Amino acid sequence: MPRLYLAGPDVFLPDPLAQADRKKALCRQYGFEGVFPLDAAPDLAGVRGPADAGLAIARANEETMRACDLAVANATPFRGPSLDPGTAYEMGFMRALGKPVFAYANAPGPYLDRVEAHYGTPLVREGGGRWTAPDGMSVEDFGLADNLMIVGAAEASGGALVVEDVPEGSRHTDLAAFEACLRLARQRFAEAPRAAAAGPSAV
Amino acid sequence: MPRLYLAGPDVFLPDPLAQADRKKALCRQYGFEGVFPLDAAPDLAGVRGPADAGLAIARANEETMRACDLAVANATPFRGPSLDPGTAYEMGFMRALGKPVFAYANAPGPYLDRVEAHYGTPLVREGGGRWTAPDGMSVEDFGLADNLMIVGAAEASGGALVVEDVPEGSRHTDLAAFEACLRLARQRFAEAPRAAAAGPSAV
Repeated sequence: MPRLYLAGPDVFLPDPLAQADRKKALCRQYGFEGVFPLDAAPDLAGVRGPADAGLAIARANEETMRACDLAVANATPFRGPSLDPGTAYEMGFMRALGKPVFAYANAPGPYLDRVEAHYGTPLVREGGGRWTAPDGMSVEDFGLADNLMIVGAAEASGGALVVEDVPEGSRHTDLAAFEACLRLARQRFAEAPRAAAAGPSAV
Repeated sequence: MPRLYLAGPDVFLPDPLAQADRKKALCRQYGFEGVFPLDAAPDLAGVRGPADAGLAIARANEETMRACDLAVANATPFRGPSLDPGTAYEMGFMRALGKPVFAYANAPGPYLDRVEAHYGTPLVREGGGRWTAPDGMSVEDFGLADNLMIVGAAEASGGALVVEDVPEGSRHTDLAAFEACLRLARQRFAEAPRAAAAGPSAV
């Protein structure tokens, strides 16, 4: 059964293991073994202090990803207009290994609109057509739901960034879009199980 | 000369190519060829509309990264308490390929403090010792400058997330911390040029 890495800020939920169990049960329905980041016990030998512990967790997560065949990432906007940066990192990690990365975001609308809301002041369109934020940095305007690398990874994996509008209170727990990603993943693995599960050559 | 991928939100500066030139000149001083994301011309054949163009750029950036030997990432907080998500993605991508990833942030202080500032209200410490944000999501407290995957990548590459406090106005342009990363990179490549430039086996 292909091992599916459950990337996302779900680890920060009040009860992360309950959410992990819900996701793993859905994974099984679609023929995957769900693997949650907290499943791996980091090697704490020689660890001194919290910074060391954090780095040990990072190493454990990387080992876990290498041992998985694909990922479904919770790319819901997190503390800003974009997804959680740890999740973005993990999407890039899996993608570089040639492993499919599906992703979902429980938030509607294009990135550009969320950036405008983040600054709380209208973006300015300059002569060249670039949208510019109050800090002078331009804002990408491709009509995508997040940074182009994030959406690109999902598209290149045979899926898309699945976007769902859910009530604010269930933004980090709703699993409809997650399940849509599992459907895409099952389809991809049914079509080309070997290619999908293969290493870097399957980019 | 090792090819060094210049990851970061520098592409969103008002004059990104001027910043690219400054970074490339510094790279040469340290024995590297700097490669800026905008150097690659995306393949626009068959591209229809802005979303397609965005995805073509994503593909071009991934090809560029595969052709580079290491990266220095600008991990300065961007539109929130963490770095730009495209940069986080690229750090994970290079790390998965076993290529060294150095990183810097032109902002002082731990991630926890910036998260508190982001919410604009004090974090609450629960019985178990976890800090919790107003949305109920916990906040990692390892004393690190950003998400543990980001700092972990820099540490595992033989460096650290180099943090520099600079005036607000030069947060996205100051290159002192970037140059500190180049020093770390030169040291690593001088010590083990082959291992540092090798593929996934050099993790």
